Formats: sequence, C-alpha cells, structure tokens
Amino acid sequence: MWLEYEPRSSGVNCVKSLYLSLKGFTKEHPIVANALTELERGFAGMLAVTKENIIYPLDEAKPPAETLALRLERDTEISAEGYQLTADEYSLSLRAADESGLLYGVFHILRQIAIEKPLAELTLMSQPDIKLRMLNHWDNLDGSIERGYSGRSFFFAQNKVLPYERMTDYARFAASVGINAVAINNVNVKDAATRLITPEYYSEVRQIAAIFAAYGIRLFLSLNFAASLELGGPQSADPFAEEVINWWQKQIAETYAAIPDLGGFLIKADSEGRPGPFTYGRTQADGANMLAKIVAPYGGLIIWRCFVYNCTQDWRDYQTDRARAGYDNFITTDGDYLDNVFLQIKNGPMDFQIREPISPLLGAMEKTNQILEVQIAQEYTGHQIDVCYLVPMWKEALDFVIGAGNDKVSDVVSGKTYANRGGIAAVANTGDDANWTGNDLAAANFYGFGRLSWSVNLTAADIVGEWIMMTLSRDEQVINAVSDILLHSRLTYEKYTTPLGIGWMVSPHSHYGPSVDGYEYSRWGTYHRADYLAIGVDRTSKGTGFSTQYREPHASIYENPATCPEDLLLFFHRLPYSYLMKNGKTLLQHFYDCHHEGVKEVEAMIAGWNGLAGQIDPAIHTRVAERFARQLDNAIEWRDQVNTYFYRKSGIEDRYGK
Amino acid sequence: MWLEYEPRSSGVNCVKSLYLSLKGFTKEHPIVANALTELERGFAGMLAVTKENIIYPLDEAKPPAETLALRLERDTEISAEGYQLTADEYSLSLRAADESGLLYGVFHILRQIAIEKPLAELTLMSQPDIKLRMLNHWDNLDGSIERGYSGRSFFFAQNKVLPYERMTDYARFAASVGINAVAINNVNVKDAATRLITPEYYSEVRQIAAIFAAYGIRLFLSLNFAASLELGGPQSADPFAEEVINWWQKQIAETYAAIPDLGGFLIKADSEGRPGPFTYGRTQADGANMLAKIVAPYGGLIIWRCFVYNCTQDWRDYQTDRARAGYDNFITTDGDYLDNVFLQIKNGPMDFQIREPISPLLGAMEKTNQILEVQIAQEYTGHQIDVCYLVPMWKEALDFVIGAGNDKVSDVVSGKTYANRGGIAAVANTGDDANWTGNDLAAANFYGFGRLSWSVNLTAADIVGEWIMMTLSRDEQVINAVSDILLHSRLTYEKYTTPLGIGWMVSPHSHYGPSVDGYEYSRWGTYHRADYLAIGVDRTSKGTGFSTQYREPHASIYENPATCPEDLLLFFHRLPYSYLMKNGKTLLQHFYDCHHEGVKEVEAMIAGWNGLAGQIDPAIHTRVAERFARQLDNAIEWRDQVNTYFYRKSGIEDRYGK
Repeated sequence: MWLEYEPRSSGVNCVKSLYLSLKGFTKEHPIVANALTELERGFAGMLAVTKENIIYPLDEAKPPAETLALRLERDTEISAEGYQLTADEYSLSLRAADESGLLYGVFHILRQIAIEKPLAELTLMSQPDIKLRMLNHWDNLDGSIERGYSGRSFFFAQNKVLPYERMTDYARFAASVGINAVAINNVNVKDAATRLITPEYYSEVRQIAAIFAAYGIRLFLSLNFAASLELGGPQSADPFAEEVINWWQKQIAETYAAIPDLGGFLIKADSEGRPGPFTYGRTQADGANMLAKIVAPYGGLIIWRCFVYNCTQDWRDYQTDRARAGYDNFITTDGDYLDNVFLQIKNGPMDFQIREPISPLLGAMEKTNQILEVQIAQEYTGHQIDVCYLVPMWKEALDFVIGAGNDKVSDVVSGKTYANRGGIAAVANTGDDANWTGNDLAAANFYGFGRLSWSVNLTAADIVGEWIMMTLSRDEQVINAVSDILLHSRLTYEKYTTPLGIGWMVSPHSHYGPSVDGYEYSRWGTYHRADYLAIGVDRTSKGTGFSTQYREPHASIYENPATCPEDLLLFFHRLPYSYLMKNGKTLLQHFYDCHHEGVKEVEAMIAGWNGLAGQIDPAIHTRVAERFARQLDNAIEWRDQVNTYFYRKSGIEDRYGK
Repeated sequence: MWLEYEPRSSGVNCVKSLYLSLKGFTKEHPIVANALTELERGFAGMLAVTKENIIYPLDEAKPPAETLALRLERDTEISAEGYQLTADEYSLSLRAADESGLLYGVFHILRQIAIEKPLAELTLMSQPDIKLRMLNHWDNLDGSIERGYSGRSFFFAQNKVLPYERMTDYARFAASVGINAVAINNVNVKDAATRLITPEYYSEVRQIAAIFAAYGIRLFLSLNFAASLELGGPQSADPFAEEVINWWQKQIAETYAAIPDLGGFLIKADSEGRPGPFTYGRTQADGANMLAKIVAPYGGLIIWRCFVYNCTQDWRDYQTDRARAGYDNFITTDGDYLDNVFLQIKNGPMDFQIREPISPLLGAMEKTNQILEVQIAQEYTGHQIDVCYLVPMWKEALDFVIGAGNDKVSDVVSGKTYANRGGIAAVANTGDDANWTGNDLAAANFYGFGRLSWSVNLTAADIVGEWIMMTLSRDEQVINAVSDILLHSRLTYEKYTTPLGIGWMVSPHSHYGPSVDGYEYSRWGTYHRADYLAIGVDRTSKGTGFSTQYREPHASIYENPATCPEDLLLFFHRLPYSYLMKNGKTLLQHFYDCHHEGVKEVEAMIAGWNGLAGQIDPAIHTRVAERFARQLDNAIEWRDQVNTYFYRKSGIEDRYGK
C-alpha cells in the first residue's frame, strides 16, 4: 500500500534527527502511541532517522542543525479530528483537539515527506469535510467476500475470527487516509454472522474494536433484522411487537456491555431477500427507530441502507422502474427518523454501474441524516482485473448540485445544508492478497476514497498524483504516465462496456464480462429493452416518471434528450438507433465507435504501462501487466459481443466497416 | 417404481397356489434365488398367493384347481439371456439357457400379471435385440449427481459408499427391464472417484458388483484416463509410454484381483477438459487400445465415449462446427480398435437436445463396435420438472436407416449389420428421492429405456401403456389420458422451447429455462447466429459441410431445405424469417405459433392430469400436479422470452397479435 516508507530524497527534507515534544497528550494513550510509532517508522524508513536520533526533549531548547523540532500539542480550539500545522525551516508544530487529530496530523506530515515536498511548507489547518467516513466490508464468516476480488477475508475464516496482525495493518491504512468507521461483516447477514452479537464472538469482536479504536476508528457490525427469529428469540421481527423490542433491548445491552466501543449497526433490510419491517406492514422508519432507540443510550448509530426495491420484477412489466424505488420507498418517511439513524444511499439509483445519474433521494430528505454510499470494490467496474479509477465518479456524486441553489451532495452528507448529521461510506476492496487489492492499481481507489472523504474539494488529479508518489515513484514521467492511465480509466471502461448510461449487459451472477441480454429477461428490474429500432427505457414524465423525482433544473434537463447529458442519454430515454448525437453520428454508430475506442484506449494504457518497465518495482510492473492482458481480453470481448449483438439486431452496419 | 406388486384383479389370473419346479438350475445360485424371491413377492402381492401356498414339488403331478404349475427349466438351445414361455390354462413353462434368462422370464411373467393379461397367453420366445444394455450414472463420490434431478446419489456420499439396500432395489428395477450393465460413477472422474480402482474402495465396490451380479448386471467403473498422474504413478498418461502401460497393468491386475466380476471401464477422454490421448499426440484408438489390451485377459470391456469436440471455440469463428466433431475425430480410426473396445456415440451430433439429427457417426464405422448413448436424465429436456417422455426420441435413433439399404442404427448397435459387437447406454435419471425419479412420470423413461433396449420394435405406445398399468392404474380412462400426456410430451416440450432443430437457447450452466443468447457468445460451439433477417447455421455442403457426413440419401435430403424434414430445418440451414414453411406460414410466424401451441398443450396436459384426481394414488397425483404447475411457468417463460426476443430482433409482429 502507501505506507511502505521507502527512502526518500534527503535533498528535500534534510533531517538527520528529530526532537519531539508532546504537550497535553499522553504517550500512553493508544492513539498517541500509534501516532508516535508511525512517526518513528516513517522517519526511519524515509529519512533514515534512526530511533536513537529521535529525542523527546523536556525543554524547548533550540535543536541542533538538520534536526527537526516537532511539537505535538493539544489545542481545544481546533475542531474534532482536525489539526493545525505550523512550520518554519527546522521546526514544525502540530496542534489538535483530540488524539485522532494528532494521528491524522502525523499522517499528513509523513505524507509530505513521502511525496517529497518540504516540511517547511506545512502551514495549514485541516479538518474533515465529512464527519462519518466509513468502510463497509462484505466479508462473510466463512472467509469468503461477497464481491471480493483480492482473495479471502482477513477478518474471518471458517466462522472464526482470524489473527489480528493484518487487521492492525489494515487499521493503519484506513486511518492514514482518514477513515473513522468500519463495518467488518457483510450486509447480507446470514448463518454465523447473525451470532456476532452473541457471547460466541464477544471477546474477539472486543479485540477488533480495541485495535480500531487505537487508530481512531469505530467498529460497526452489520445486523440481521430478523436476528430474533434465528437466535432463539421471539418468532417475529415486527418492530412494534413488545416481545421483539424487549428481546433487542436485552441483546443490545449485553452486546454493549461486552463491547462498549461499538459504533453501532449497519442494516440491509427489506432488500434482495433480506427481512425487514415491510414484512410486518411497518415503515422503514419504524424499523430503524426501534433499534435506534435501543442503541441511543450507548451512543450507538443505526445506519440503514436504502437499497430497497422489487427484486422479483416480471420483465414483461414495463410500468415498474427499479430506478424509482429508493426515492419512492423512503421519501415519505422524511422527518420520521430518530437523530441517531443515518440513511445510507447509493450514489446511483440502480446499483454501482459505470455511469448512473446521482440518486434523486440524495438531498431530497431535508430532515434525515444521510450517508452517500459508493463502492470501491469493482463489482461492475472490472473486478480489479480491469483498471478503473473511481475517484472521478465519486467526485461527480459529491459535486452534484441537488437543486437550483448551490447545495451539493457533499454539503448534504457533511451536514451543512440541512444541519443534519451525515457521512460517506464505501464498500471496501481489500482482501488477504499479498498486495491487499488484487490489482496494485486498485489500491489507488482505497486511498482516493479516504482522501476525498476528508477533503471533498481535492481533485482526482491531486489525489492520484499523491498516491503514485507515495507508492510507485516520484519520477515525473511515471507520475504523468500512471496519472494518465488512472484518470482516463473510468471513461475507457465505460466505452468498451456500457456507454450512454445504459448499464448492465453484464454476465449475470459474476458481473464480469459481457452478456447483452444477461439481465434482460430476469427479475432484477434492469432492462435495456433493445429491439430492431430502438434502445432504452423512457424514464421521463412520459415514461416511468423517474426524471420527475429530481429537483429543478435537473428534472427538466433530464426530461429532454436535447438537454440530457449524453453520457446519461440512454438512462433517461428510449431512442432510435438513428438518433443524432451532438457529434453528428447516429446513436448506434456512436455506440459502435465507443466500443472500438475503448479497446484502443486499453491498448494505449498497456503501451503506457509497458513504457514504465524498469522505472518501477518489477514485481508490481509484472503483476499489473498480467492484469492488463486480461483487461484487453475483456475489452475485446465486450466490444465484439456488444457490437455483434446490435449489428445482428438492427441490421445497421458499422459505417467504418469494423 | 413398477415393482410395487399391488393387488391385481383375480378375474384375469385366478391363481390361489403355485407349484414350482426347478430343473437344471439350482436355488442357491444368487440370480435364481433372486428370481424365486421375486416370484414369491409378485404372487403374494398381486394375487395373494401366500408363501405357504407356494410348493416346490418333486414330481410333475397335475396340480389341483386354481393352482399354477410353473416349470422353470434350463434349455441350452435357447440363446444367452433369452427365454421361452409356454402356457396352457394352469401350467406355464419357462425355459432359459442361463440364470439371467430365467430372471428375465420371471419378470415377464410378473409383468403379465401386473398388466392383467392372462398367463395362459404366454407362449413366446424372447431374446434381447441388443446384447449390452447399460446405464451410466453420473454420480460423484461427494454424493452430488451431475445433471441429477432426483436428489442425491444412492451410491456415494462424502467420498464413502452408502448402505447397499437401495442399490439392491435399484438392481431389481434395472434387471426387471433387462439392463445388464451399469457404470456407477460420473464419466467426469475427479478427486476421490479416481481412487475407486484402488484398495481404498475395493471391498465396497466388490460388494456392489456382487449385488449387481445377482441380478445379471455387470458393474462398470468410469475411469480417469490420467489416473497415473493422480495416483502417484508416472507423471504422464501417454498410452505409448512403457511406464504408463506398466503402471496400468499393475493397477488393473490389482483391481481385477479384488473385483473379478468387474465388467470393465467407461472413459470420457479428451472431452470437456478431461485428459486423453490427444494430449500426447496419440489417436483415440491408441488410448482405448492401450487399456483394452490390459483388461482383455480379465474379460473386461473398454467403453470409449465419442463426445470429443473443441469446447473452447471462439464464437467469432464461423468455420468450426461442433456438429462435425464426433465424426471428424473418429471416422479415420475405424478398424483400429481391439475387439473389446466399444465406442459410445450420443444419439445426436451435439448434446442431448430436444431434437437433433441422428449422429452421422452411428453406423459410419463398419469395423468398430458401437454403443448408442441416450440420456434418460432430463438435462436439456425439463429436469424432471417438465414431463418429457423420451422413448419416441430414442426410437427415432434406433429406427434411423443409416444409408440406402435397410440397415438401421438398431441393427448396427445389435451387431447385425457389420457383425460387430454393440450396445445401448443411457445416462440414468435416478437419485435418492423417495419416488426415485423426482417426477413420478419420469420413471416411465427409465422403464421405457430398458424395455426398448430389449425389444427395439416395441412401440412407444405399447411401452407407455405397460408402464401405466404397472404403476398407476389398469383403468382404460387413466391409461388413455396418461398415454396421451406422455406420448405428446416431447413434441410439446420441443414446441415451447426450441422447435425446428435450433436447440440451445437455454440458461447456461443449469440447462433449465430460456436464455436465447445464453450460449451465443460462448466457447461451447452452440450458436443460432440469429440476426434481424435470418437464423441458423448453414451446415450443408455450402456451409460447414456437416450434411455431407451422412450417407445418401440423407446427405441430399438434408442438403436442401425443401427436402429437409422441417423439424430439423434450422439444424441444417440458415434461413430468413420470411422463409415459407410447408403449412404456408413464414418461418418466424411458425416459430411464434409453436411457442403459443406449446403453452396451450401444457395447459391441456394439466387439464388431463387434473381429470384423473381420485383415479390414481392421491400422493402421486399431488406430486405430479405440483411439477405440472412448474412446467407451465417454464413453458410461459420460454414462450414469452423467445417470442419477445425474436420480435425485438426482427421487428416482425406475431400476425395473430399475441
């Protein structure tokens, strides 16, 4: 990952020894201890400042030459988790109100060294834009990971908790980019996972919570809404049933007694076969509030996913529109939720496709805490075989202006717009692979998610440059070449798979590789409805009405194909293949061309990567090259299957004879 | 199954006691013992002749009234396995050359009672048309059954052999319809199954062989051609390598020493990922002969499957035609095989679709022993959820005249045409479900396969009538109604799935339910190539040339759409949707209509079945009714997906506005 602390040029930061002072913090605090250890590691690795050259002075005497005086000091004026850095040539002051702020400041200093920027430039105030910055792991207790592409779980195997070493490393990585909350088990809570809230796992879960806490991270568990039925409690999960409430009260009290640090619970209810309040004729708010009331005394949160839709749709049903479901199921409950409930809303209305409009539910609820959910795991975006840098997609979501004013999604989830609480969460992409993320370049997504969560105004280019310098090289050619690959990779993936917002067309179950009709006659509500003349679903006011769920000006913009952004054209409209695009091509020719361009772009990426041989770690170069070869196969398969499918269906030849 | 021996009308066969004499046979022979036990069971159950009323007389004195004198006598003039029955009003003689013939004769007598026909009519000679009548079980040692739709294996679970009771019952059923050979493990031999030929399993396998032998059945094992590599032998499977030959010699000698009754081995080599002689640049004959030579001294057979094709085809490749593969891979080896090698050839050139032409390889090899392989397990024909009576399909294969003369496939596999040895084999459809075959009506296929193997000239109607009388009822209304359902069921299944010989369009992996493009862009060589104008693969001399593999007159008949049987039209030809069928409809309208008719016919079948409530065992009626409901869902799904697909693709509306 990015905390290898390989040697850095001493020309930039010529530090041979370090004087450290600590004021208002105690070395014994676990977070402080971790921060100091991290400093030692970083200075030793990057600047060869060995342990004996790190001195904790009792006085403030001016240190000798080539010595950095680093003053760590508590300052209660600074906001929670934030930090202030003040530098001159050989001294640096880090001030924070709390231990987490101290830790984040330390990681900032180390990052500055890692990217070979002068410490002397570090005069700044930093605080997180979003308060709750979370990772969701879809790890099962048997050790598998749902939509995991980096090996097995490092939390669980064979219904047991694994050794803690890798979790500790993981906590370092997460904290280094500002993550402060982690749910460790799959939102599809089944079998043994239901028992994580029972004594069978208390001792292990408490230990994980402690490891996380020492990095400023709160542990969350995904909860089975019907746990009472499975754990020998009442044979109901009705949130209004007194016996159910009593059962949860007792269960939660016991759990919090054993694991006082627990941040709370993440819940997928009434979703894709998971039980929920709808089963008992209750609203989503009824379900969430029942639990929220019980966890409130312990400071716990209930994070409630909004991924509720009819997953047994008849494909012959042209009325039902899955895109509408999140909004339709939740909008009427605005204001009904207790203060410690957070609704977690996916960035798009469907499910993590390469291009979707921003969910109209985000920002629509003015009296409800909202979390933006994105996916680092590349479920529909290449399985960490294909390179697909997702920060640009997440930025689109955060930067989306929800109505006629200036309020963005980022303002909603930071709690500014409606003075609610908010957050951001991502499905993680890590596993027990030696390199953590399968494709080494996929680590950039993990890194980028954390950095963006902290500072929503960072650009994708800034973040990617940082990550390259922290991991691969400080050489400008490498930075430019890898930046180029990463920053274009999402558009490339979109081109060779499903451009124009059409989405899906992917192999069922695996979600890798093409299958144009794979979801066309299925129960999942994901249809392109392509026939010999036209493609797409009319989601305007004349169609399913989905576009009307947006505030203006979006509703009008999306309503009209002429104003609808072309990259979302087929999400909102059903159009003939002959429809003229702004570039003068017909829709189908454009669609064909995108697929050809996508393959060419992969070839160019590969050429770019090959050009770096000898300039980066050969092991990494080889691993990524092997993935690129598979990506090219995948891109060709997408191009040929999709273009053949539409040629066969429309009879319209590719005018360039391809 | 059909050996329940429920009481039968005593009006037809009024027998109150039985005088049994045995001449030339000994009661102690296991087959004879089983035959006598079967007689006791049958007479007790069907005619209430209790055990004390069965008398083994020493003399030939005329028995008292209402007593049947049954003389069982060895007659070496009769051919192997055959039997002769001679009846008058109260005496019956059964003569056979061997114990198997005796057993088959006993089952014939019991069948006559079961179908309520007079024993006095039993004057006949019966001998099997085909000498080797085999079942192949695709049971894995973990207890799963590849393409099994009747529960788990009754041979294996968790890599252990199961208790023998159910195998004994199974052997009764199999013998009662004339089966004389059974391979108990999956042709895809992996993991523990490779070790069936090692001491780990000798004692259990020997026991199964003994149970089978007592019913005249020889046990076969499926063999892993690369066993040497997996069992610690030479790291090669080259049939020309001396060390490999030596290893097999030792291994086979040990196996036969432990299980002298073993009939031999069934081998799937160079097929769908299984290793084989092609890996070492050897022919199929080289591989088969190496093993055949080794098993010959033990009287063993090598049954070698011809299911060899390229299963990693590029769908963009229009030259390769999987249909050609069996013929192309084997035809040049005719005459190369040792006398104890049998080539096992599937009925169609593809893979057990609802309609295929007969494999051109059948009968093409004049100097090679051939086995016709069919599939009782309803892999592509409804998973024993949908009713699909397959005897008519198998009869088509047996009755196919292979060239300009009169020689049929049945003559080839009976060894008449070329004076070779031959056989018939079927993939079995049984499991540990209480009713053996999932759908009770699917048992008719097991029964039918056995009966047809013995007497290839029986009609499907004869066999189905027998089966109904033996299992459901002797009531004429029931016989007619169930016959009607079964005899039309294959045509109905064909109509609502893939008429005109197009095949496939089935859900990948599961092979149940529609997925029109499911195999279209895959590596399996099974394409319909449908576009906006036309559908099908040209397999004539102008296309892949597959039709030229047939002898005349078939080659010419198939070459021309005007003479090609319409039910195979899209197997051999690529045709426009506007092609005019003999009924005056366009091809596409006919295709649409078939799907509508198929659904209507399922509804009619269900009505027919519902009309039998009260007339047959209510438990059976309910079980079958539940399967029919699922069949109707399946048929509707096929109709709607297929017709929608082609409407979308062609833009041609169903003229009846459906």
